[in-house]
Amino acid sequence: MPKALQPHPDRALPAGESRDLARRIHASTKDLPLLCLHGHVDISLFAADAPFGNPAELLVIPDHYVTRMLVSQGVSPDRLGLPRRNGSHTADPREVWREFCAHWHLFRGTPSRYWLEHEFAEVLGLSVHPSSETADELYDQISARIAEPDFRPRALLDRFRIELLSTTDAATDDLALHKQVEAELPGRVIPTFRPDAVVHLDRPGWAYLAEQLGRLAEVDTSTYGGYLEAIRKRRQVFVQAGARATDHGHFSAAATPLSDAEAERIYAEALKGQVSAEDAAVFAGHMLFQSAVMSAEDGLVMQLHPGVLRDHDPAIHAAYGPDQGHDIPVTTEFTRSLRPLLERFGHAEGFRIVLFTVDETTYSRELAPLAGVYPAVRLGAPWWFLDSPGGMRRFRELVTETAGFYNTSGFVDDTRAYLSIPARHDLARRIDAGYLADLVVQHRLDEEDAFEVAQDLAYNLAKDTYLG
Amino acid sequence: MPKALQPHPDRALPAGESRDLARRIHASTKDLPLLCLHGHVDISLFAADAPFGNPAELLVIPDHYVTRMLVSQGVSPDRLGLPRRNGSHTADPREVWREFCAHWHLFRGTPSRYWLEHEFAEVLGLSVHPSSETADELYDQISARIAEPDFRPRALLDRFRIELLSTTDAATDDLALHKQVEAELPGRVIPTFRPDAVVHLDRPGWAYLAEQLGRLAEVDTSTYGGYLEAIRKRRQVFVQAGARATDHGHFSAAATPLSDAEAERIYAEALKGQVSAEDAAVFAGHMLFQSAVMSAEDGLVMQLHPGVLRDHDPAIHAAYGPDQGHDIPVTTEFTRSLRPLLERFGHAEGFRIVLFTVDETTYSRELAPLAGVYPAVRLGAPWWFLDSPGGMRRFRELVTETAGFYNTSGFVDDTRAYLSIPARHDLARRIDAGYLADLVVQHRLDEEDAFEVAQDLAYNLAKDTYLG
Amino acid sequence: MPKALQPHPDRALPAGESRDLARRIHASTKDLPLLCLHGHVDISLFAADAPFGNPAELLVIPDHYVTRMLVSQGVSPDRLGLPRRNGSHTADPREVWREFCAHWHLFRGTPSRYWLEHEFAEVLGLSVHPSSETADELYDQISARIAEPDFRPRALLDRFRIELLSTTDAATDDLALHKQVEAELPGRVIPTFRPDAVVHLDRPGWAYLAEQLGRLAEVDTSTYGGYLEAIRKRRQVFVQAGARATDHGHFSAAATPLSDAEAERIYAEALKGQVSAEDAAVFAGHMLFQSAVMSAEDGLVMQLHPGVLRDHDPAIHAAYGPDQGHDIPVTTEFTRSLRPLLERFGHAEGFRIVLFTVDETTYSRELAPLAGVYPAVRLGAPWWFLDSPGGMRRFRELVTETAGFYNTSGFVDDTRAYLSIPARHDLARRIDAGYLADLVVQHRLDEEDAFEVAQDLAYNLAKDTYLG
Repeated sequence: MPKALQPHPDRALPAGESRDLARRIHASTKDLPLLCLHGHVDISLFAADAPFGNPAELLVIPDHYVTRMLVSQGVSPDRLGLPRRNGSHTADPREVWREFCAHWHLFRGTPSRYWLEHEFAEVLGLSVHPSSETADELYDQISARIAEPDFRPRALLDRFRIELLSTTDAATDDLALHKQVEAELPGRVIPTFRPDAVVHLDRPGWAYLAEQLGRLAEVDTSTYGGYLEAIRKRRQVFVQAGARATDHGHFSAAATPLSDAEAERIYAEALKGQVSAEDAAVFAGHMLFQSAVMSAEDGLVMQLHPGVLRDHDPAIHAAYGPDQGHDIPVTTEFTRSLRPLLERFGHAEGFRIVLFTVDETTYSRELAPLAGVYPAVRLGAPWWFLDSPGGMRRFRELVTETAGFYNTSGFVDDTRAYLSIPARHDLARRIDAGYLADLVVQHRLDEEDAFEVAQDLAYNLAKDTYLG
Repeated sequence: MPKALQPHPDRALPAGESRDLARRIHASTKDLPLLCLHGHVDISLFAADAPFGNPAELLVIPDHYVTRMLVSQGVSPDRLGLPRRNGSHTADPREVWREFCAHWHLFRGTPSRYWLEHEFAEVLGLSVHPSSETADELYDQISARIAEPDFRPRALLDRFRIELLSTTDAATDDLALHKQVEAELPGRVIPTFRPDAVVHLDRPGWAYLAEQLGRLAEVDTSTYGGYLEAIRKRRQVFVQAGARATDHGHFSAAATPLSDAEAERIYAEALKGQVSAEDAAVFAGHMLFQSAVMSAEDGLVMQLHPGVLRDHDPAIHAAYGPDQGHDIPVTTEFTRSLRPLLERFGHAEGFRIVLFTVDETTYSRELAPLAGVYPAVRLGAPWWFLDSPGGMRRFRELVTETAGFYNTSGFVDDTRAYLSIPARHDLARRIDAGYLADLVVQHRLDEEDAFEVAQDLAYNLAKDTYLG
Repeated sequence: MPKALQPHPDRALPAGESRDLARRIHASTKDLPLLCLHGHVDISLFAADAPFGNPAELLVIPDHYVTRMLVSQGVSPDRLGLPRRNGSHTADPREVWREFCAHWHLFRGTPSRYWLEHEFAEVLGLSVHPSSETADELYDQISARIAEPDFRPRALLDRFRIELLSTTDAATDDLALHKQVEAELPGRVIPTFRPDAVVHLDRPGWAYLAEQLGRLAEVDTSTYGGYLEAIRKRRQVFVQAGARATDHGHFSAAATPLSDAEAERIYAEALKGQVSAEDAAVFAGHMLFQSAVMSAEDGLVMQLHPGVLRDHDPAIHAAYGPDQGHDIPVTTEFTRSLRPLLERFGHAEGFRIVLFTVDETTYSRELAPLAGVYPAVRLGAPWWFLDSPGGMRRFRELVTETAGFYNTSGFVDDTRAYLSIPARHDLARRIDAGYLADLVVQHRLDEEDAFEVAQDLAYNLAKDTYLG
């Protein structure tokens, strides 16, 4: 008989003396609306509002948390249906799904397992665990479920109690789909301005994007000055479309401004296709500073995600493109890197920067001390590999004593996997409930304060940070 | 009705199976006398033995843990009464106190909250929580309390059961106040020799201090040899005044000796006001080594606190001076940095160095292995941002398995906030009691050993490290 | 009355709600056979199969975990009987034993205490704790016990339920003793190929070893090509003797190949005794890459142990030789260092690399992400200073959420201390049982999955990693 799938009501809550209080705290937050102010769901999902394709396309292929684990145990990306850039390979979605189900045990102890069980049981209504034996039956059940009209993306916004959702969009996105969605479904989906592709001068295709940026902004980007102006104008368009934030994925947190002359020189070399890796790196740091300049003007909240070496395996990148799970963190430095930016804007009225990391050694050493003194700084939720029960718990333990609760930004789900959004928020609320309950039973926090903080962590802080 | 302030008798003890034992262990240490062998209380407090000023001056303005948290949430330093260097600003202390009380919720989950509750309830006899509503009432109560004769600094030494207290004093301090206090209150307050200002050649005012050093020591400091001799003689004066230790706050832990010729060259350039930042840094490392040379001669215990980027925000520093909460840690390295010093003195009879860090990644990787083999090395108590329930717990967890308990130095309170001293020691004793109790209930330590270790951690190890 | 020695049946299991389940999980793994596939027991032990010498030689002198702790508290290496290289010192073993017993309290809270109590009670049948009072009695009891015929090394293999044990052997070992043992005791002891001494060109004696390598392999090692060929041939001999793995202790994890010309140039300079430290370091990184090339050919599992500064105190090294506890970890980097190796072999069929670290900051940041995507990578058990209850627990907490359980390698005991092997495996099984039980009571893992994972961690994963 297949094993029953029944997520426990107390899952991810602490055991022992604090469980009952953790349960009560979680009960007080679990039905709060979701603010999804940093995510990667594609706007086209809401523009088309079409039924999802099939279980493999919905749950396996686009989720690099899932595919990387299967790859790590020897399942080839081709067998998982990862689309090759040259289009040379396609996989039968049912076979992909079987592969996934046969390896379900690999996810024991991981947040993917937690999220997927939640999705399976609470969103898709499944009642048995994946396995080789149950794969086909589950495939058929999911296929039937996602064909139902109430399972369209827009309907799920309501079902998931998503009050507001931000997508993440290139500086060169014309936001046409956002305008359509806003017209048809007002006030529910907003863009986020992500200029990464236009500020990293040595990435393939940069010159084309710089030109496209100029075209969209109706500014000549053949000079550094025009380029800056084009970015400024694109930000305005994002602001008008409701954007509240920018997002910056840089290798380092360096944010040191260059002189105009130096910036112009590097920009000119990039246009000639001659920029060095060193120059491109300092220019990226310069543009991080310039983004702060612009945020201080237009009020967009800066979000910084440094410290990841993207596409660690060039062969995987060449064959399958980016975001295939081969991005690996490196040591990250904030104290010195952000100093020029914080010197200028750390106390600036109306300026805010939210810091994320996948290097948790920086929590108590750098991030909490910075957030614990600069009004501009908020600490983002544990990111990527750290968006997990243990990762979130350690974040609270390592950050709270120096930065308190009120210099953190509230939860962001940071996901491409639309169905996982409720599971991710719920898990965060459970971990925070457990942390707060543990503080109360150790008499380190009053119970009534714990309930108030729980509301703040689950809802109010995200609102204050991004919309406040 | 205002919320009652009642620190729980079991606060900061573990919940569950180990609580009862933790309680009994804490009961066995909580009344032991306090050895405060590394602190920053000003000697003038005891020399004047005058009543404290007002609640804001006593509890808010000088406590950078408190002010930085308020600043981080947008309260301007001016509203908190931080004295501007140019004297252009003063704040009404009652207004400062109100500002603090209105933001009391920010301290939830922080050690400041713990310490302050302890001070409010057990030292000042308050019975309600700070809030906008209670601010004035609390201000008046505290004002009345600190006007009472038994609330003078010297009387509190007894009340706090402080057996011996070290201040921290510049190499150029003439120790006149220490001599006065020693005469009037023998054997209770001793100085600590802190030469930071005279070994960092590129700090503003260094030349003046070098000259002053020479004047005090009656040695010509216009040569490097004279400078060394002056430091040696000043140390003798400190030793005669009862000092047991030196204290070194360096950016890095580097302790590499220079040749005499190189040291002379750099010193000569500094006298001409021409020292480079690089030369100043290597000279500081050289002087750390020279301090070890002198400690091996005169027996003063070295204390090293590396790894903090001071005055991260130059504008705050320019306006308000140092120690305003804008000091941010950086990655710190000990293994290679201390190697020259430990090669020479790591096994030297009678030489001792106590290592502190705000980079807790070094606990299991570098500090515990170093302390676990070199007889000269002891690990100092968790410092600054890590002087917290979680920080102290992690210290024990990350250090004990390699270095044991007996290569740690015992608790030091490291505080300017005189009233917080009992709270800080009590919190440390509670955390150690909880750690020991948890080891016992997991059958990793015998119960009778736990009680013995608790005495050692609370009292004997500090005595042995600094006075032994 | 001396204190009774009675290791508790629940030792190192969690307290509270999960204890009963942890007990049951541990009961299900505690009698599984031991796979000791990475250790440092000397093959001569099994070749001679002679009685052990005396308690000091058996339990104190060769165990650097024990001696470094005693040294750290001022006991001189001479008093502990550490043999001086010049043979100038010997100590009475009974005096050494007394010294150890008198300092037994230093080991409170350390894994050494745990292992020794286990050995004393369960292997040696002692019933009182070491102390100055009991030292002589214990010495006599142990002496009598180790004189018994069933206490010979080979007999203990059965008693310890060791299914298979790997030694660690120089590339220049002729494996004569392994052949003898294999003939007399087939299939129980195999060698591991450790080429460290022949790939670090600047170590004293390298030229002699390179020549010896050539002699053994019957290849002229006066050229780089011959040297590579000699290593390849030596590996074949190890493979024929049953070796399953290589072992690499490098200062850094760098594994960047050089051009043939560059490798030849450096090799030629080394032969002339003129290699620079920089060249020797890049050559070592090159040889790590070459080891991967060879492993991809011959199937030996690579094991990498980087990040330790050996012989931190040169005077200790000069007097007593290596491995005296003065090896101190440094920050270690994997993401960039291993990239060239993983680019080439990360997805290679049949290639496997097991990564160890003493820098636990790399667990969640680098190691788990690497193991969580590259099929070639497995994470080794917590190593050296981290082979402890807390260290093993943190490993699971920091690694599992990203890499899962199935990208870890199973426990390796990594010890010279033969008697401690059962204690070490038992402790690992207890910690894993506790971790799994905690996941279950927090409803993060199903109970039946926990039992299955426990078997895998205790036995199957080591088999799969090294023998699969």
